[in-house]
Amino acid sequence: MTTTTITRWEDGSKEELSELRAGLDAQYAAWKAKGLRLDLSRGKPSPDVLDLSNALLDGLDTYLTEDGTDVRNYGVISGIPECKRLFSELLGIPADRMIVGGNSSLTHMYNTFVMLYLFGANGSAPWGAQEKIKILCPCPGYDRHFSVSEDFGAEMVVVPLLEDGPDMDIVEALAREDASVKGIWLVPLYANPTGSVVSGETARRLAAMPAAADDFRIFWDNAYGVHHVFEEHTLPDILSLCEEAGNPERAFYFFSTSKINFPGAGIGLVAAGPRTAAQMLSHIKMQTIGYDKIIQLKTVKFFGGRAEGIREHMRKIRALLRPKFELVLDVLEREFSGTGILEWTPPKGGYFVSVNTMDGCAKSVVALAKEAGVVLTGAGATYPLGKDPRDRNIRIAPTYPGIEELAQTMELFALCVKLASIDKLLAGK
Amino acid sequence: MTTTTITRWEDGSKEELSELRAGLDAQYAAWKAKGLRLDLSRGKPSPDVLDLSNALLDGLDTYLTEDGTDVRNYGVISGIPECKRLFSELLGIPADRMIVGGNSSLTHMYNTFVMLYLFGANGSAPWGAQEKIKILCPCPGYDRHFSVSEDFGAEMVVVPLLEDGPDMDIVEALAREDASVKGIWLVPLYANPTGSVVSGETARRLAAMPAAADDFRIFWDNAYGVHHVFEEHTLPDILSLCEEAGNPERAFYFFSTSKINFPGAGIGLVAAGPRTAAQMLSHIKMQTIGYDKIIQLKTVKFFGGRAEGIREHMRKIRALLRPKFELVLDVLEREFSGTGILEWTPPKGGYFVSVNTMDGCAKSVVALAKEAGVVLTGAGATYPLGKDPRDRNIRIAPTYPGIEELAQTMELFALCVKLASIDKLLAGK
Repeated sequence: MTTTTITRWEDGSKEELSELRAGLDAQYAAWKAKGLRLDLSRGKPSPDVLDLSNALLDGLDTYLTEDGTDVRNYGVISGIPECKRLFSELLGIPADRMIVGGNSSLTHMYNTFVMLYLFGANGSAPWGAQEKIKILCPCPGYDRHFSVSEDFGAEMVVVPLLEDGPDMDIVEALAREDASVKGIWLVPLYANPTGSVVSGETARRLAAMPAAADDFRIFWDNAYGVHHVFEEHTLPDILSLCEEAGNPERAFYFFSTSKINFPGAGIGLVAAGPRTAAQMLSHIKMQTIGYDKIIQLKTVKFFGGRAEGIREHMRKIRALLRPKFELVLDVLEREFSGTGILEWTPPKGGYFVSVNTMDGCAKSVVALAKEAGVVLTGAGATYPLGKDPRDRNIRIAPTYPGIEELAQTMELFALCVKLASIDKLLAGK
Repeated sequence: MTTTTITRWEDGSKEELSELRAGLDAQYAAWKAKGLRLDLSRGKPSPDVLDLSNALLDGLDTYLTEDGTDVRNYGVISGIPECKRLFSELLGIPADRMIVGGNSSLTHMYNTFVMLYLFGANGSAPWGAQEKIKILCPCPGYDRHFSVSEDFGAEMVVVPLLEDGPDMDIVEALAREDASVKGIWLVPLYANPTGSVVSGETARRLAAMPAAADDFRIFWDNAYGVHHVFEEHTLPDILSLCEEAGNPERAFYFFSTSKINFPGAGIGLVAAGPRTAAQMLSHIKMQTIGYDKIIQLKTVKFFGGRAEGIREHMRKIRALLRPKFELVLDVLEREFSGTGILEWTPPKGGYFVSVNTMDGCAKSVVALAKEAGVVLTGAGATYPLGKDPRDRNIRIAPTYPGIEELAQTMELFALCVKLASIDKLLAGK
């Protein structure tokens, strides 16, 4: 096999690229022959991370909360007090505006949309009664935010996601001018998939910007609030910023322990402005006589009732996750630095690495990988309706596979990016 | 203290009743002086019943379902297969039309209303887009059914609940003539609060009756499906009856283990017609990445994976509940037989005893009891909007208190009924 070295691929001649391609084709054929079955699509914890929380499955010394409620029985709508206090300390959000319950923050998000669509926000008209509702979607973003919006028939408006959060000039203009713009999705800390962090200034602008809709809402999904990997960032306090700006009901704050202990049996929570929290509770009490309180008490016990207990646990998870992120970034650096065929920004934390291929190559990369036995997150998944306008973003999810499997998968991923890129470059020569 | 014996109280003279009243007043004053704090309002299991399920809190030998899913991690929307099979065997409903998840069947009921109001039933117009929606409410009934209907703004139409279910002549007429009549609530087995049982014939008529609304729905809340106390009744198979009658999408079937193991951490389920189940799933998968599967696997293990395991467990609960029901019925029989001031039908099973005072006395009874330190279910709670048109129904919930406490409470209850009745009778003399 000859070795051709081209630094910046688009500068390569047709001959150089063709020669390069021949070598890559051979490698790809060899990969396919291995018949591997690998998966780089799953944003979920690996078994060794889950094992860190196995004590959560054990029994309890007492069935009683600190105020004497038997957690096995009915009752308690907004969460047991010690559990609310734990998350209040961890997140710096007021316990009295928090609803803790269920195993999924996504369910709280969906319920929030249900409330806004059926009943409206604090006396405003129900969103379901409006002719059109638009939701701003910083992209690349989280596909399940888009699915929720889509389920309710909202029009999703793509806004560029920058290093410090959504492009606020665009967000401010859209919110100011269009009363059908009712909200914005955000993963403020270590965004899915880019790992970017909303800055204090961006948060302040979001909280304070004038909006044509008096029921404009921020869906602040702090899914990775304690998932530091390379850096430790602090999240701006969006609820207080909204209050200070005279928009106390603007933000919904979501959090869960799904990626702290067990996705299958964690705890979800939502917090909101004072009137909104009361409105949510008025409907939630029609939906349930009480969430699972046993897992709440177990969770409090597991973390010693202290935010530091959660942070300590997350340092153990970080030790398991960081080598995986380093491996991914090392492969990207080694294979693509200076080539001009792949862009990425190393994430600061969270669960993903986001890459951009050359325009029009993402689908081909995913298809090539699939043919060779590697499942990647679908190209387009990081945009509303699965439509990436430039067909270039791919979300790499390194958390689930073991390190060996991840190394193999990344090799094949790199190969597929190269093949798709050469095709595109040759087509233009 | 003189003792006056009157058999049928309304036949008593003013003097006899006044004399009786003086004795009762003295007893009531003595009760009040005791300063008791008792509660007969709570339809929830007692600690000794909960203790029967404590093994549910213990760990698991394996985290894997029979098809290899790690229950600690994400995934599985409609329930793990062994758990669906268990409930399918227990209830005789098809596993492939069942969604098992969450700790509350009430949440499934609410979600069902959300779907019908926002998205409509299988392509019919959303209920939220209709000018008026009417829901039939057999009464006395379950207050939380009424709350759900009320939250969505439905008009609730009271229908008499008879010994064998709702008065079907009335139900059929209303459904046939009024297209805004969209559904009916039912607790078909051991109804809350009367303990009555829907007969096969009533179920058949419900399934087959013509309805002006093509999206008429039965909300079949089998909350007490295995809660036999005095008799063992079998529930008509409403899903099959609807299919046979050519209305395969008519019924939603709800069930939970809240009153089998832990109300705070049980399992809820909903089953429906084939198209409806698919429609529900299409929305539920937007709401969650998977319900708590750990409790599902634990529940399967706890019951040995067999319906007989649940039935065996329920026989233990029955042994604890039956003396409480017998005590209540003994007091009622002893104190009120032949008096004409209180009517009741001994329940066949379930969780409650329903009594009717003379018209206009229920609120007074509850108020008198409260003044003497005994909390009863609010008068009117068994009717929509808390309005019992004859102010006579009271729900007695004997499951939670210990037997001694229950005995005391029933004594006071009987006294309060007598006092309120005498007031009413004297007012008419």
